[in-house]
Amino acid sequence: MPSPNPSNDKSSQKAPAAKSESSITPRSVSYSDWYLDVIRQAELAEHSAVRGCMVIRPHGYSIWEKMQRELDDRFKATGHVNAYFPMFIPLSFLTREEQHAAGFAKECAVVTHHRLKSIDGVVQVDPESKLEEPLVVRPTSETIIWNQYKNWIQSYRDLPLLINQWANVVRWELRTRLFLRTAEFLWQEGHTAHATEQEALEETAKMLDVYADFAQNVMAVPVIKGRKTPGERFAGALDTMCIEAMMQDGKALQAGTSHYLGQNFSKAADVKFLNREGKLEYVYATSWGVSTRLIGALIMTHSDDGGLILPPKLAPIHVVIVPIYRKDDEKERVFAEADKVKAELCQKGLTVKFDDRDNMQPGAKFYEWESKGVPIRIEIGPKDLEKGVLCLVRRFVIEQPGESVEDQRKRRKSFVPRAEAIDSIVRTLAGMQQELFDRALAFRQSRTRVIDNLEDFERFFKQEGGGFAWVHWAGTGDDEDQMSKRFETTIRCIPLPDQLPAGAQGSGTCILTGKPSAQRVIMAKAY
Amino acid sequence: MPSPNPSNDKSSQKAPAAKSESSITPRSVSYSDWYLDVIRQAELAEHSAVRGCMVIRPHGYSIWEKMQRELDDRFKATGHVNAYFPMFIPLSFLTREEQHAAGFAKECAVVTHHRLKSIDGVVQVDPESKLEEPLVVRPTSETIIWNQYKNWIQSYRDLPLLINQWANVVRWELRTRLFLRTAEFLWQEGHTAHATEQEALEETAKMLDVYADFAQNVMAVPVIKGRKTPGERFAGALDTMCIEAMMQDGKALQAGTSHYLGQNFSKAADVKFLNREGKLEYVYATSWGVSTRLIGALIMTHSDDGGLILPPKLAPIHVVIVPIYRKDDEKERVFAEADKVKAELCQKGLTVKFDDRDNMQPGAKFYEWESKGVPIRIEIGPKDLEKGVLCLVRRFVIEQPGESVEDQRKRRKSFVPRAEAIDSIVRTLAGMQQELFDRALAFRQSRTRVIDNLEDFERFFKQEGGGFAWVHWAGTGDDEDQMSKRFETTIRCIPLPDQLPAGAQGSGTCILTGKPSAQRVIMAKAY
Repeated sequence: MPSPNPSNDKSSQKAPAAKSESSITPRSVSYSDWYLDVIRQAELAEHSAVRGCMVIRPHGYSIWEKMQRELDDRFKATGHVNAYFPMFIPLSFLTREEQHAAGFAKECAVVTHHRLKSIDGVVQVDPESKLEEPLVVRPTSETIIWNQYKNWIQSYRDLPLLINQWANVVRWELRTRLFLRTAEFLWQEGHTAHATEQEALEETAKMLDVYADFAQNVMAVPVIKGRKTPGERFAGALDTMCIEAMMQDGKALQAGTSHYLGQNFSKAADVKFLNREGKLEYVYATSWGVSTRLIGALIMTHSDDGGLILPPKLAPIHVVIVPIYRKDDEKERVFAEADKVKAELCQKGLTVKFDDRDNMQPGAKFYEWESKGVPIRIEIGPKDLEKGVLCLVRRFVIEQPGESVEDQRKRRKSFVPRAEAIDSIVRTLAGMQQELFDRALAFRQSRTRVIDNLEDFERFFKQEGGGFAWVHWAGTGDDEDQMSKRFETTIRCIPLPDQLPAGAQGSGTCILTGKPSAQRVIMAKAY
Repeated sequence: MPSPNPSNDKSSQKAPAAKSESSITPRSVSYSDWYLDVIRQAELAEHSAVRGCMVIRPHGYSIWEKMQRELDDRFKATGHVNAYFPMFIPLSFLTREEQHAAGFAKECAVVTHHRLKSIDGVVQVDPESKLEEPLVVRPTSETIIWNQYKNWIQSYRDLPLLINQWANVVRWELRTRLFLRTAEFLWQEGHTAHATEQEALEETAKMLDVYADFAQNVMAVPVIKGRKTPGERFAGALDTMCIEAMMQDGKALQAGTSHYLGQNFSKAADVKFLNREGKLEYVYATSWGVSTRLIGALIMTHSDDGGLILPPKLAPIHVVIVPIYRKDDEKERVFAEADKVKAELCQKGLTVKFDDRDNMQPGAKFYEWESKGVPIRIEIGPKDLEKGVLCLVRRFVIEQPGESVEDQRKRRKSFVPRAEAIDSIVRTLAGMQQELFDRALAFRQSRTRVIDNLEDFERFFKQEGGGFAWVHWAGTGDDEDQMSKRFETTIRCIPLPDQLPAGAQGSGTCILTGKPSAQRVIMAKAY
């Protein structure tokens, strides 16, 4: 018989805390080590033997599946359908749009042969299987998709064409980082075709709103909507809109982009349509995408030194039940109650894990599920049954000024009368979702400055930890490079007018050049 | 104002029929042209500019999404989780398992370079970007996945590992055919690791059962479960189990496979675990997969000369509502009723399309949705409103002996009292699902023979159209080749004992060699 720790007392709580401290580097020691430790402890992903390519482990992938479902529902609700296009792009297609080709040329995986052969007993690439035309593994699919749209679009009646694709893409990166930058990654790419510029511009803005809604209301990640400067645009776009989030180290992370492509790709693929006036015209295009990078954003926005923290809406498991017992008859009663609680929670639409492993101490289970980010743990022991309560432990509470880790730990735990417990859990989860957003927003505000001169700018980034600097800007691309060299900052976006906080509105003078500036931009260090 | 055809009368029915005859080649004229015509008319897929790669169009992809959801639910219900592994496999990994490498060597897309460069004004592969080790685009993922499992498996406590992946794979095929055989295709591949041979064998059989359940109860495609002969096994497997279906031309189509891999891949990747006895042992493996090929099986099992027929459980749209009106006030009343009917059907969990396009005649709409396989059409006109009925048109009825096409068309249509219509539609859909299965099973039975000599065998395949021949077999691989050369038939499977029909049980003598045979196999021509 197993003899796990029998009670909800302090000792069972301390074990995981001690283990936690040894396993996850605190953010204050090394933010980048902390990030990798959180991923490792939560078993989200790991490097593979293939240079730059990661393995998304089951727990990480289940978060991606949740994201996919939420995004896909939103795409379909806005009239889009899914399709699938080849992952190979003939070299000649990729190079049809000049800027596009130039933008992706340096990071292309290229298929050149189609057969292996055993030569002198060693299996190697068969030199006789060389392809007439090399094939590039898609870094993005504009060129191959627009080549197909040519067959599908004849008149304005065929428009708009609102198609999305879930796929893997490859961009050969030299320096990789789990989720944030890998050679192969998973994403969705929307590619839409429209009869008018106006409609395409509206689509570009609409999909940015879809992304912002998803980021804020599902991921609990506050974002600022804006546009990129010409130098930061997608290769081949006339306009790139983006959402930018702030990570816990004050750096910006681009969380999604939506591009207005004008007629660049329809011209490259020669896709014309008969408009309402009966004239032939090139089609107007947009494209938009988010990727597994969002999992990186999720981790770096919410997690703490104890490991992963997930917003309930993206948690693959909402509640874990850990049974606590010593004797057989205790086990029987505790398991019966656990089954009952689980069934009641499942009826509320929650995903519940009953951790009935008998070769593991409760403390080790607490630690495992905390580091994997399960929002609520229920501990069920004989005493709880006697008292008619459920012991609920939240994954986190919002820090109060001056509060010790021990005090926080106490606040995370509550004993709720059994009859009220199920509703209480549902309410608590909704509350946690909102608290995460509020905390992230408050953090961003605490690391945001409206700055009007280079001295303050320098102090902010070199002494005060940096963050988002709202500055007036009227410089050139070269001026941007200069800022980047001096401060490692870039223009994250030119925020949309309704995104400007109080005190940042109106015109002014460029922080670097002193030239007149119509509005402020956000400068920050970035991932 | 539009002036669409105002009534449910014959003329509106004839238009699509005429168009249909001209657009889809009848099966009796050319089965292979018919297959491609059905795909084109239903807008399921088309060839791309990339050799051997297809584009899955939105309607085709929505069927795949339905399949994925049904399969994924079944995988999860049997304890599996999803993950994602790199699509690139280092050449040295692929060649670790000798048979595996030999099996896939001739159809590998190989990445050899990672950069493009403009040379003399032409963008081409940068010769200086040659990879140290070529990367093969996964034709299947055993080798890359087992290399990773090495990190995850130490003891029997880490087992079983039950992981599935949804992914694209590439097998460079010379002769391609939409859905059935393409260079790139979409699939799922399960890769499980077990502590004992027994458990791995049980997993292999269990997943074959999952596939058979899905094929029969969701796709409405009857299948026979069996095992492959050694020559037809998956490269590297000790045992390959399969489900085989019969298409309308009497040919067999392999619809899914489940492999027992023994310790072949754990040995190749050196994955050992500490067993319950404390000894190091190689892990036991299975893998199993189905692909977008299933869409081809679906088409070829159920569709008719009017186009695609879908089992309701996989229909992206269950019911289409086509409004019929002449005047504005009619339109208003008809649209109001259509909205009401749609809402009531949606409440039943059905997906309903209200085709309110005003630039199209009803007849053209009928034709479009019929060729796309929507199971039920509702026509709503002013007369139906007056009479208090709904006009329901089923996509198909089961043919009766000697029935004319015109009589069948009449039987497809019914007028149901409005109050009973919603329940009637739900019942009808369930009935259609069963009818499709029953029809396919009856067809298979009509094209199945228990055959005991080569003369009958020859007559069956050369004069009677062929099908499934249950024959005794005790030949060698060379003997199989001989049959293949003479009759174009192969051994589709050695059926599991419970799959043998009456009259096919017991031992006998091999149809070719006359040697004693323990049981019959299925021989057929195949896709």
